[in-house]
Amino acid sequence: MSKPKVFEKPVGVKDYLPHAVAKLRRIERNVLECMRRWGYEQIVTPTLEYYDTVGVASATSDRKLFKLLDHRGTTIVLRSDMTAPIARVVASLLKQEPFPLRLSYHANVFRAFEEEAGRDAEFFQTGVELVGDATAEADAEVIALAVASLEAAGVSSFHLAIGHVGFLNGLFEEKLPGGTEAQELLKECLLRRDFVGYREQLRALGLKERDRAALERILRLRGGRETCDRALELSEHDGARSAIRQLCDIWDVLGAYGVQDRVLIDLTMIGDFSYYTGMTFEGYASRLGFPVCSGGRYDNLLAQFGRPAPATGFALKTTRILDLVGEAEEERERLLILYAPGACREALAEAAAGRRDGRIVVTMPLRTEADWAEAEEAAARSKAGAFAFRGRMYERLRIIGRREVDGR
Amino acid sequence: MSKPKVFEKPVGVKDYLPHAVAKLRRIERNVLECMRRWGYEQIVTPTLEYYDTVGVASATSDRKLFKLLDHRGTTIVLRSDMTAPIARVVASLLKQEPFPLRLSYHANVFRAFEEEAGRDAEFFQTGVELVGDATAEADAEVIALAVASLEAAGVSSFHLAIGHVGFLNGLFEEKLPGGTEAQELLKECLLRRDFVGYREQLRALGLKERDRAALERILRLRGGRETCDRALELSEHDGARSAIRQLCDIWDVLGAYGVQDRVLIDLTMIGDFSYYTGMTFEGYASRLGFPVCSGGRYDNLLAQFGRPAPATGFALKTTRILDLVGEAEEERERLLILYAPGACREALAEAAAGRRDGRIVVTMPLRTEADWAEAEEAAARSKAGAFAFRGRMYERLRIIGRREVDGR
Repeated sequence: MSKPKVFEKPVGVKDYLPHAVAKLRRIERNVLECMRRWGYEQIVTPTLEYYDTVGVASATSDRKLFKLLDHRGTTIVLRSDMTAPIARVVASLLKQEPFPLRLSYHANVFRAFEEEAGRDAEFFQTGVELVGDATAEADAEVIALAVASLEAAGVSSFHLAIGHVGFLNGLFEEKLPGGTEAQELLKECLLRRDFVGYREQLRALGLKERDRAALERILRLRGGRETCDRALELSEHDGARSAIRQLCDIWDVLGAYGVQDRVLIDLTMIGDFSYYTGMTFEGYASRLGFPVCSGGRYDNLLAQFGRPAPATGFALKTTRILDLVGEAEEERERLLILYAPGACREALAEAAAGRRDGRIVVTMPLRTEADWAEAEEAAARSKAGAFAFRGRMYERLRIIGRREVDGR
Repeated sequence: MSKPKVFEKPVGVKDYLPHAVAKLRRIERNVLECMRRWGYEQIVTPTLEYYDTVGVASATSDRKLFKLLDHRGTTIVLRSDMTAPIARVVASLLKQEPFPLRLSYHANVFRAFEEEAGRDAEFFQTGVELVGDATAEADAEVIALAVASLEAAGVSSFHLAIGHVGFLNGLFEEKLPGGTEAQELLKECLLRRDFVGYREQLRALGLKERDRAALERILRLRGGRETCDRALELSEHDGARSAIRQLCDIWDVLGAYGVQDRVLIDLTMIGDFSYYTGMTFEGYASRLGFPVCSGGRYDNLLAQFGRPAPATGFALKTTRILDLVGEAEEERERLLILYAPGACREALAEAAAGRRDGRIVVTMPLRTEADWAEAEEAAARSKAGAFAFRGRMYERLRIIGRREVDGR
């Protein structure tokens, strides 16, 4: 294979230039601050984890895990999410800490390089995990916090779709008992939001008309609390009915949070992750076809790390949000100080004072005739307000010291 | 090999729990804010780079690079520093931007897993690059900014040692012309700060007494500006003398910055990096034996990416600084709201109001007799000030709603 060109970087990874970093940092800061006010404390875990511990436990499919070997031949992964690493920490370093634990993070996560272009190999997530609380209040808290976090990120127009893995699992078990393959095919259609394909699959199964109709009616199970009532009419299955009752409880608490208008019950929604055990949700911004946030309850994960506990949480897809929000405004005054070499001390003292006051101050010595000519030109332009000097914008210009005849 | 235990993580990587993250984040925030006030703009580059571009150009020795293969068989590295990635960006995405460019970063960097324990495989660096400015003012600016950054990080007692690769190279070339091997041996002793070994090597070389004495006298070349005068007495070599004159110019500008008392000229200092071309410096905190910051001028790197330019910069070793600075104080009031399920709406509204005011607010429903007993106990304890509830500390407690008889 040929050598990469000097300016190339691997497929699926990005550079973020200053204006993008300013936005990314603003989102990160505002969202983490929001999570902090809800009592969530930040943790940081390593980029590298063992495949046999965190890799296997993660929600990411095996072929998408970014794997490598360490010098002993043990398989390492670049973390694919933060949920499994946090479960590891909760079960080890935080073993003595009583539940509930509220933890937050902002981290880059990885996917194996894909043959198709356009898939990110590295991207940012900002999220929380609420561990050790099985109540509807806990689920409602992370959903309401997801709403608050998207607002804090600056996403103006979005809604969350909430489902429950127990409803579809129960309904399918009731209508297609033992038909694992048929169930998988139908779930795959729902996962792709391919409702035409779903109907076709249904027809091909040759079910009793009543059961086929019931399974088709779930496509219309989207809306407010009335959706739950309609769902209860479709199934006598204990698991499915219990799932709906849990969703109703969560819905009521979301009402107390005052966020019901941001939320839609959508029982056709299947969490991306195989390990969800209860409610799942996804956030959609009006201008994007893919989710900007996803989460749900995962009550089986902690047991894999030796500390069984219920847990619920979500992650914002921070890199995707970056394109949705406006530019970060630079609220600081930028001052350019140009100085004669003999006025160095005076110029640097003035720069220090400006920086103490919170200003952005750049200093440059003027050595040549050309430097002075450029400075005088900038001085003329600066009278009209913000001005550019050597490619940067400034609001204010100071020229310190007198032109020294360059007779050296 | 045996499977890792479920709670294990790879050798040389760390989890940071909330109190450590609070410190790390405070250092990151304060240092980046300091750099910003000096006109440096943040960039973010990918964790993964091609070995043939950034890997080869980096200052990290080949065997310490963390290498892996992508699906095409191309060698990828986990970045080992940010200087080479930034050089790549300056020569590509920022190609049209005029010099000087002032860029800053906070990033995790990687080293290959080492057989010896105790070496970090992943750690944080916070630094700047000033690209396109060859002057002594530019070198002095990054040194003065390193001082300001260490102060902003909260390191109270430290000094910077400044050297120049041109002085030792010139002096060795003059006294040991063509003796590459002898030069390397002596440099290795200096790199290890092994002055006894250096003297022994010198004696073993069988030099003229005058040359031996000159080479031995460099061990005492540490101090203020007078060090430069003493150095000039040791060598007639053009490169060595020119290096000293550059150091003097830098020293004078450091005087104008008012940071000379933080700085020591140390001509025995050899930059860790083979690619430095001018002044180099390291920062030492009084309680640590290893540097907390390092930097220098590297005028040859940018050419490797196709945009030749002088450059100078430094990186704080942020992970090391973490142990040097005090705990981050939590300045916010933490409020715990416990509520009867019937008072959910009221409790959540009060929580929302507290969060809008910048408080940290945690809410929990009280369902059982045991919950209520625990709440009343906490209420009694809270009268004396800060109190613990289920392992967390709070400053204030609110109980909302009345005990509902648990007759359900």
